[in-house]
Amino acid sequence: MPLAPLSVPAATPDQPARERILWTAYALFYRHGVRATGVDRVIGESGVTKVTLYRHFPSKNDLVEAFLAERHARWMEWFDAALHRHGDGLHALAPALAEWLGDEDFRGCAFLNSTAELGDTVPAVAALTRQHKQDMAARIARLLPPSPARDMHAQMLALAVDGAIVHAQFGSTPQAALQALGHAVALVERAV
Amino acid sequence: MPLAPLSVPAATPDQPARERILWTAYALFYRHGVRATGVDRVIGESGVTKVTLYRHFPSKNDLVEAFLAERHARWMEWFDAALHRHGDGLHALAPALAEWLGDEDFRGCAFLNSTAELGDTVPAVAALTRQHKQDMAARIARLLPPSPARDMHAQMLALAVDGAIVHAQFGSTPQAALQALGHAVALVERAV
Repeated sequence: MPLAPLSVPAATPDQPARERILWTAYALFYRHGVRATGVDRVIGESGVTKVTLYRHFPSKNDLVEAFLAERHARWMEWFDAALHRHGDGLHALAPALAEWLGDEDFRGCAFLNSTAELGDTVPAVAALTRQHKQDMAARIARLLPPSPARDMHAQMLALAVDGAIVHAQFGSTPQAALQALGHAVALVERAV
Repeated sequence: MPLAPLSVPAATPDQPARERILWTAYALFYRHGVRATGVDRVIGESGVTKVTLYRHFPSKNDLVEAFLAERHARWMEWFDAALHRHGDGLHALAPALAEWLGDEDFRGCAFLNSTAELGDTVPAVAALTRQHKQDMAARIARLLPPSPARDMHAQMLALAVDGAIVHAQFGSTPQAALQALGHAVALVERAV
């Protein structure tokens, strides 16, 4: 089974403090949410002192932003590889997403969850989310043949992907969401 | 301007305590999130005693569930009326959503936000969300002519609607999300 986007190096005592803090926060923020995870818990589980944590991350928002930057890099790397694994055409989209949405550690999109939790109280989170989704849509566009409608198709498929992600979060299984995503792909295929 | 789904009776001193608590919680939960809103704040802003609140809502989860039940009824009522206002065909979907996504009080979908915040810690919230989204998809299906593919088209459009809702939350304006939703509608129109 290929690595899912959640897979991060486990925090271990031999790592530099910054990495230990970051991987600990990454796992906690993704699993429990950024608001539900207090800095004290990150300190406790990473085994650093409060002074060390605040030296590397002066505020909790700095830690949230570092988490999302790391998440972006890992998610895009996973997405690119998963699309390749499934043939890198439009048909690859739903099977690639199925890998992630069916993973036992799936807990939704870190960016959409953080936006839902924080609203507009942390503008940097909205900006990182915009960038993440732009890059996702650009990668989806590369599944499509060049045409004047390519970007619009890709933006529509990006909506459907994000719809599938949030539906898989409340659905008992991701199957219905993946089927509806497959239908979006089929409609685009018919149009190109 | 028609009432947006957020519009609820303002909590006033002459209302029965239960309503005062519920409308106060509704506004706070929607605006700030269910986790960020403490019961103490609901008590303070609704002007009831702690004993009164807990007599009507024995736990915070009871209050969250009452909020979502009320939200469901009001959102569906708004959605139905908005689709009617715009002609009640497939073409009505994006303009109806535009009313809400462009509203200054828009803060996303209360159900998706609560699911993002709470994960699987409150199963009742996931169940209420499933019901809400099923009802939304069923209403979308009524925009389509009967056909074997009608439900699948409606499920796909429901994904696109939820994608548009979450995109409007992090976008600086909802225009790009509404345009992509309009494209989903156009692809379905071409297929039916």
